[in-house]
Amino acid sequence: MADRAEISPGDWWRTSIIDIEPGKINVRGYPIQDLIGRVDFVSMIWLYLTGELLTPGRRKLLEGTLAGSMDHGPHAPSIAAARMAVSCGLPLNSAVATGAGMLGDIHGGAGQQCMAFLYRLGEMVDERADDADPVISAVRDYMKTESPFIPGFGHRFHPVDPRVPRLYELMDEAKAEGAIDGRYADLARRVEDALAEIKGKRLPMNIDGVSAAVFCEFGLAPELGRGLFVLARSVGVLAHAYEQGGQGHRIKGPMPRHIPYTYEGPAERRLPDAETGTGPGSTKSGSTKSGSTKSGTDV
Amino acid sequence: MADRAEISPGDWWRTSIIDIEPGKINVRGYPIQDLIGRVDFVSMIWLYLTGELLTPGRRKLLEGTLAGSMDHGPHAPSIAAARMAVSCGLPLNSAVATGAGMLGDIHGGAGQQCMAFLYRLGEMVDERADDADPVISAVRDYMKTESPFIPGFGHRFHPVDPRVPRLYELMDEAKAEGAIDGRYADLARRVEDALAEIKGKRLPMNIDGVSAAVFCEFGLAPELGRGLFVLARSVGVLAHAYEQGGQGHRIKGPMPRHIPYTYEGPAERRLPDAETGTGPGSTKSGSTKSGSTKSGTDV
Amino acid sequence: MADRAEISPGDWWRTSIIDIEPGKINVRGYPIQDLIGRVDFVSMIWLYLTGELLTPGRRKLLEGTLAGSMDHGPHAPSIAAARMAVSCGLPLNSAVATGAGMLGDIHGGAGQQCMAFLYRLGEMVDERADDADPVISAVRDYMKTESPFIPGFGHRFHPVDPRVPRLYELMDEAKAEGAIDGRYADLARRVEDALAEIKGKRLPMNIDGVSAAVFCEFGLAPELGRGLFVLARSVGVLAHAYEQGGQGHRIKGPMPRHIPYTYEGPAERRLPDAETGTGPGSTKSGSTKSGSTKSGTDV
Amino acid sequence: MADRAEISPGDWWRTSIIDIEPGKINVRGYPIQDLIGRVDFVSMIWLYLTGELLTPGRRKLLEGTLAGSMDHGPHAPSIAAARMAVSCGLPLNSAVATGAGMLGDIHGGAGQQCMAFLYRLGEMVDERADDADPVISAVRDYMKTESPFIPGFGHRFHPVDPRVPRLYELMDEAKAEGAIDGRYADLARRVEDALAEIKGKRLPMNIDGVSAAVFCEFGLAPELGRGLFVLARSVGVLAHAYEQGGQGHRIKGPMPRHIPYTYEGPAERRLPDAETGTGPGSTKSGSTKSGSTKSGTDV
Repeated sequence: MADRAEISPGDWWRTSIIDIEPGKINVRGYPIQDLIGRVDFVSMIWLYLTGELLTPGRRKLLEGTLAGSMDHGPHAPSIAAARMAVSCGLPLNSAVATGAGMLGDIHGGAGQQCMAFLYRLGEMVDERADDADPVISAVRDYMKTESPFIPGFGHRFHPVDPRVPRLYELMDEAKAEGAIDGRYADLARRVEDALAEIKGKRLPMNIDGVSAAVFCEFGLAPELGRGLFVLARSVGVLAHAYEQGGQGHRIKGPMPRHIPYTYEGPAERRLPDAETGTGPGSTKSGSTKSGSTKSGTDV
Repeated sequence: MADRAEISPGDWWRTSIIDIEPGKINVRGYPIQDLIGRVDFVSMIWLYLTGELLTPGRRKLLEGTLAGSMDHGPHAPSIAAARMAVSCGLPLNSAVATGAGMLGDIHGGAGQQCMAFLYRLGEMVDERADDADPVISAVRDYMKTESPFIPGFGHRFHPVDPRVPRLYELMDEAKAEGAIDGRYADLARRVEDALAEIKGKRLPMNIDGVSAAVFCEFGLAPELGRGLFVLARSVGVLAHAYEQGGQGHRIKGPMPRHIPYTYEGPAERRLPDAETGTGPGSTKSGSTKSGSTKSGTDV
Repeated sequence: MADRAEISPGDWWRTSIIDIEPGKINVRGYPIQDLIGRVDFVSMIWLYLTGELLTPGRRKLLEGTLAGSMDHGPHAPSIAAARMAVSCGLPLNSAVATGAGMLGDIHGGAGQQCMAFLYRLGEMVDERADDADPVISAVRDYMKTESPFIPGFGHRFHPVDPRVPRLYELMDEAKAEGAIDGRYADLARRVEDALAEIKGKRLPMNIDGVSAAVFCEFGLAPELGRGLFVLARSVGVLAHAYEQGGQGHRIKGPMPRHIPYTYEGPAERRLPDAETGTGPGSTKSGSTKSGSTKSGTDV
Repeated sequence: MADRAEISPGDWWRTSIIDIEPGKINVRGYPIQDLIGRVDFVSMIWLYLTGELLTPGRRKLLEGTLAGSMDHGPHAPSIAAARMAVSCGLPLNSAVATGAGMLGDIHGGAGQQCMAFLYRLGEMVDERADDADPVISAVRDYMKTESPFIPGFGHRFHPVDPRVPRLYELMDEAKAEGAIDGRYADLARRVEDALAEIKGKRLPMNIDGVSAAVFCEFGLAPELGRGLFVLARSVGVLAHAYEQGGQGHRIKGPMPRHIPYTYEGPAERRLPDAETGTGPGSTKSGSTKSGSTKSGTDV
C-alpha cells in the first residue's frame, strides 16, 4: 500500500452519506431541512443505510421488527451491563456504548448469521429445484457441510415467542401489498418444518430468525442485520440505564454479594523464598481444599 | 450498606420497563404483539423512556429533532472513530459502541448542559418577573455566577445552521396545536438576543441549543438530552461504519501517514549505564533538537 | 476558535511522548531498542506517564500498589462485565475495553477522588498549623464544606483489607530509603483516626485510600490515580475474560435465568384504538397487580 | 441448555483465579500480601494468565516484548481514538477503553493470527521432515490452502523495525539460558527467508511477527497474543490520553476542519411531494455533480 502515501489529505476521508458546507447539510442528497419534519426515524435509518427513501409498504414492517428487538430484560447481558455501568458512575453515552458493544457474534449477532444462512439456503434450494422437498434436503446438506447449528430457531425461554406470529402477520400484509416478495418469509417457515422433521422436535423460530426473514425480504446485507439490532436494542439499553440511575445503587455487581461465587483454583500456597518469581510455587502439602464456595464482594 | 446483604436474589434487579414470562413480553404494560406494527420507532423510544405513549402533536417534533442530530460528517470524532474502528477489524456492534461512546460532556453532552441551563434560566427569570428585561439580567447573572460559557449557542462552522429555523417552524406548529407550551422555545430565542447585547456579537443557536429547547418543552430530564442524542447519532455512526467496511482501508489513522505529526519531546538520549532504571536519564549534550515534525505511520 | 482553521495538518497532532521515523522509535527520547530488555513494565509505565525514569526506591512501591488493584473477583462489575462480554462473542480486546471502561467515578474512580482529597487536606492542614489537632479540624471542615463522604475509607466487605498494612510496610521502607517523603502516608493514617473520632466508629482505609496515599507521595495528578488503576485492573479483567472463554457459557446474564428479577411497572394494558400512539394508554381496570417477580431469560 | 435452570446461584460464577473472603484475597493461591512488594508487574500478568510464577529467564524477554508494543504514535488508530475521546470530554477510563477496544482482528490482532500461523506451520513442517526445505514447502502450501497473506511479516513504514533485532538478541539469550527452546524463533526467521524466495522480495518481520515468536516459545494460546498486546498498548494509550487532556483541544476531529473530506454521493435532490417517504426520491435533472470535495466541520 505504498501508494497510500500519495493520497491527498482531502481524499483520506470519503463518503456518499453526507455533504456539508457552511449553511448546508445534505443527507444522501436531500437537504436536512427538507427531511426534518417529513421523514420519520425509521425512514431516516433506511435513508442513511441504503441511500434511498423507504417505501410506505415496508415501513410498518421495519418499524415492527425493530420494536421487537429493543429489550429482553435485565437477564440480557446488553441490558445488565449498561445498568452495571451506570452504577459505576458512567454517563449515559458510555452506558449505551457498553450495552450496544455487547451485541457480538453470539448475543445479537444471530440475526446476521441467520441472514447469511437464509441467503445461502435460497441458493441451495434453487440448485435442487427438481427435488421432492428441496428445503429439507438443503437444510440437511447445510447442517452436514456448513454447520450443525441453524441460527434463528429455538428459544431457551419462550415456548412461542409472541413477536414471531405478529411479525408474520405484517409480512403477509406487506406481501399482499406487493411491498415484499415473500420468498424468505416462506423459506424461514419451511426451515421450521424441515428442522422438526430432521430433529424430530419442533424448534420454533425466534426473534433473530423472523428478523432475518424480514431483512432478507428487504435484500439487506447480513452485516446490517446486526447493525439494525444494535440500533433497536440501544433504545432498551438507554431506558434501563436511565432507570438504573434513579435507583441509586453503587457498584452493582451481577448478584448480591452474599450470594457466593465458586472458587475452584489452587489452595492457599506460599511464594518460594527467593526474591521474585524464582520458580514455581509449591502447593502447601496437606491443604487439599480443591475449591470452595466463596462469599463475593464489591470493588 | 450492610443491609444489602439481606437483599434476596430476586430483588437484586428491579425494573418498571419490561415484564417477561414464557410467551409474554410486556413493555410498560403493553403486550409486545400490540406494539409491533402499531407504534412507530420514535414513539417506542418515548414509551421506553417515559412509560407513556407519545401524543401525535409531539411526534413530528421529536422525529425532526432526532433527524437533525444523526450525523455531522467524518470530521466529527464520533463518526471518524467508528470508521477507524471498522478499519481495525471491529464488527459493527463495536464500531457503533466506539462512536456512541464518544458523545461525552463536550461532544454531544452540550444538549444536556443546555437543558440544565434553560431550566435554571427559567427559574431565574421567574425570580426577576419585575425586571424590565428579566432574560438579559438572568443571563448576565448566570454568566457571572455559574459559567461564562452558555452551551448551545454559537457554531464554529455554520453561519446559520439550516436545522435551527426548520425546528423552530415545527415548534411553532406544535405550539399552535397545543402540543407544547412554547416557554423554552421562546426563552432560547431570547437568550440569543441577550447574548448579542451582552457580547456585542450574535452567537446563533446551534443544534444542541434548539434540541435542548425542544426537550425542555417536553419536560425531559437533562440527562436524556444526551441520551436521545446518542440514539440519533448512532444512526449516522452505523451508516458510516458500514460504508467504511466497503472501502477496504486497513488500520485507518486520522490522516494519511505522509502527513506528519509534531514531536515536541526531548531529543534522543541514552539510558544511564546501570541495569534498569537506576536514575534519571541524561539528555545527550549537544543534541539540542527540541522538537521536530515527524512522518507518521500505522500500527 | 476560527484560528484553528489556520493550523497546518502537521500541527494537528502533537506529542512529547513518541518520536517515530522510518527505522527509529524513541520513547521520551530513549531509543526503543535501548529500553527493550533493560526497563521493566512498571518503569515503562512511569516513563510514558511522567517522561522520566522511575527510581529504584520507588519501583517496588509502585509495583505493589498496582499488584493490589488488579482484581476483586466476579462480583466486581469490571470483572463481571468482561466475562459477560466474552460469553456474547466479543474478542479479548473488546472484553478488556468493556471491563476497563467500567472504572468510572464510582468504581475505580475513588482513588482519583481520594488523591484530590489528600492534596486538598494537605493544604488545609498547612493553613491550620497552629491548631492542636489540625487534621481533625481540617477533616471536619472538609466534611462540612466540601463533602460529607471521604473517599478511600471504609469497606463493605473486608474488616481489615490485607493489602493496606502490606503497602504501609512498603511505604515505610521507601521513606527510610528517602524515596518518598512520607507526608501523605502519614496524613492518610491520621485521617483514619480523625474519622474514628468524628464518627465514633473506625472506617479502615481501603485499597483506594492507600493507593491514593502512594500516588500522592509520588506527586502524581489525581487523574492518573484512576488511569493507573485502569492499567492494573486490566490485568485481572483480561485473565477473567480469557478464563470465561474456556467455560463455554453463551450469553451469560448476571444471574441464572431461573432466578427472577422484579417487575414493578404497570399491569398489562391495551393500546387506545386509534392507529398509532393517539393518546395515553389506559390501565386495565381491575388489574391491580402492582409488580411481580418474574423469571428472567436470555437474549 | 435447559439444564442451566438447575444451576444454583453460587455456581453461576466460577473462577480459578481469585479467592476472596473477608480479610483474605488470594491470587492463584498466593495471599495478596505475599505478592505485593515481591512479584513485579509482568510476573503478576503471567500469574494471572497462566496460574504459575514466571521464571526469571523468561521475564526479561516478556518485559521486552511488551515494552515494544506500547505505542506507535498518533497515526495509530488506537492512540488517535483515545486522544479524540479525551477531547470529547471522556474520562481516562473511557479513553483507555476506546483505544484498547480498537485492537481488533486487523490492528493488534495480527499477533494472534501470526501465533496461529506459527503453531500451524510447526505442525506442517513436522509432517514434511523429509523434505529438502520443509519450511519453504510448508509456507507455500499454507499460502495456497489457508491464506495468501502471512501475518507478522512486512511493514508499511519501517524498512527495518528496530524492535525486531533487539528482541532476537533477547531470544538468543533466553535460549542460551535454557529458558526457551528456540523453535519458533528459528521458524519465524526461516519464514522470512522462505517469503523472500517465494515472493522474490524481502518482507521483514514486524513487531507482530517477533512478538508471536516469543509468545509461541512460551506456549501461550494465540488469543493471548492479542490480550497481551492490549495490555501493553494500554500504557501508551493512557499516556497519550492524559497528554491530550493537557492540550485543551475540544472535539478533536481526525484532521483540522479546513482540510476537506470528499463527498461522492448524489447531488442535491428534493423529496417527492407526498407527505413522508412515499416513494423513491428523484435526482434533480441537470444536477450532474457526482461528487465534490467538502470542507469539514466539527460536531
